[in-house]
Amino acid sequence: MLILKIGGGAGINWDYIAQDLRQLKEPCVVVHGANSLMKDILARMGLSERFIQSPSGHSSRYTDSQMLEVLTMVYAGLANKRIVAKFASYGIPAVGLSGVDGKLLVGKRKTSILSVEGTKVKVVSDSATGMVDSVNASFLCLLLNGGYLPVVTMPAITEGGEMINVDNDRVAAVLARDLHAERVLMLFEAPGLLEDPAIETSRIPSMALGELAVRLEQAKGRIKKKLLAAKEALSFGVRSIHFGDGRIVKPITRALRGEGTVISNDA
Amino acid sequence: MLILKIGGGAGINWDYIAQDLRQLKEPCVVVHGANSLMKDILARMGLSERFIQSPSGHSSRYTDSQMLEVLTMVYAGLANKRIVAKFASYGIPAVGLSGVDGKLLVGKRKTSILSVEGTKVKVVSDSATGMVDSVNASFLCLLLNGGYLPVVTMPAITEGGEMINVDNDRVAAVLARDLHAERVLMLFEAPGLLEDPAIETSRIPSMALGELAVRLEQAKGRIKKKLLAAKEALSFGVRSIHFGDGRIVKPITRALRGEGTVISNDA
Repeated sequence: MLILKIGGGAGINWDYIAQDLRQLKEPCVVVHGANSLMKDILARMGLSERFIQSPSGHSSRYTDSQMLEVLTMVYAGLANKRIVAKFASYGIPAVGLSGVDGKLLVGKRKTSILSVEGTKVKVVSDSATGMVDSVNASFLCLLLNGGYLPVVTMPAITEGGEMINVDNDRVAAVLARDLHAERVLMLFEAPGLLEDPAIETSRIPSMALGELAVRLEQAKGRIKKKLLAAKEALSFGVRSIHFGDGRIVKPITRALRGEGTVISNDA
Repeated sequence: MLILKIGGGAGINWDYIAQDLRQLKEPCVVVHGANSLMKDILARMGLSERFIQSPSGHSSRYTDSQMLEVLTMVYAGLANKRIVAKFASYGIPAVGLSGVDGKLLVGKRKTSILSVEGTKVKVVSDSATGMVDSVNASFLCLLLNGGYLPVVTMPAITEGGEMINVDNDRVAAVLARDLHAERVLMLFEAPGLLEDPAIETSRIPSMALGELAVRLEQAKGRIKKKLLAAKEALSFGVRSIHFGDGRIVKPITRALRGEGTVISNDA
């Protein structure tokens, strides 16, 4: 079983991904983002994103109820259906799902979040964000056994039926745990993890577990979340995490072959 | 098997529907609209709808690629996930699907549409609308047999993987055909079909097939589409079509009991 997380950057080549996915021999669940499309739609709606800086240095989207509505429209609506239609055009029987569908991703809402604003720390209590605790694995198996490719994105849902914004990288880790996936592959707009984010040739071919811990300390922004998800997935027993370039031909084959960055539990 | 079409009006009471649905004993597929939410989001985006008047008197949404994007966000995104989350809060294991997912609703794009503008008839060729030809019934059966309630809405998809806007009332009719449903129930914001749309007490309790044909000639707008869908469903062998009030307690039970309007094949 492979969990394939695909980033929401504008440079991701969905044709190349679909062509490669069609040849994949093992069962797979896709998780995707939609960051670039989200910015586009927000601009068209005259809205802008706000970010919360946590005391530990994490940056996350401030999600009030209006922002959750737009996220749901963009991620579970337009982005998800575009991806499913693209896959269908290559003969891949994809089914788009949010975490709400079949209670696929159940989590808890964070009742309060600490936000660093200048020198002050404030409490944000109206955030519709949360963490996924469990996956409806039997629902995914029903689809996989039926020959369908699940294509998953936010929002998730609480036990009580409230929609919550969750991080799709962390979703990939929890899916890997509950589906006993051997490998997690994260495709994004870089040849792999980079020593220097500004220099594409500074790719780190592989990383030992100890090194991951150190780099996690130093990392910032989106990469910090990805490394955190990688660490989580490895702690859940996933054999290897692959980071690969989502802009190139045969992105899946090449990343699984080790042409991006590999973090292995065996190393 | 029951096909339950629920309108997208602001007055529809989803709590009452969920409470009633929970007690339903037969397999069911839900199809829904999102008209009221669509108007709301279009206004927030500074967009407005355009309608095309066909020479035969049908009015339909003019759907260019931008409008299809918003429709997909609203119908398959926000509206669909809200309904699924609402049903989940009542313990109903709902799964939201567009016609794109698992190629659930496959149709053809209309390459040209005639549009009456004043005294002229113009040809509209950039419309992303179409008609559904076939349903992936085995996919729906997989979900139904797995204990899930499919909650379906537009867009549909072409064989080639293009998204198209389709009428959800007509979708209900095609679903009824391909799933061999005995009954179709359409819930909307009225006590049933009305003699005079302005007078709620003018409900028509039942209608014979011949009468349907006559009323179809006289009808306009949304009601014309609903009658057309009813006629289609009956021609496909559906035993009875029920129209009922989606604003009241026990809306499904009461409409199936004949408290709205019933059009029966036996009559």
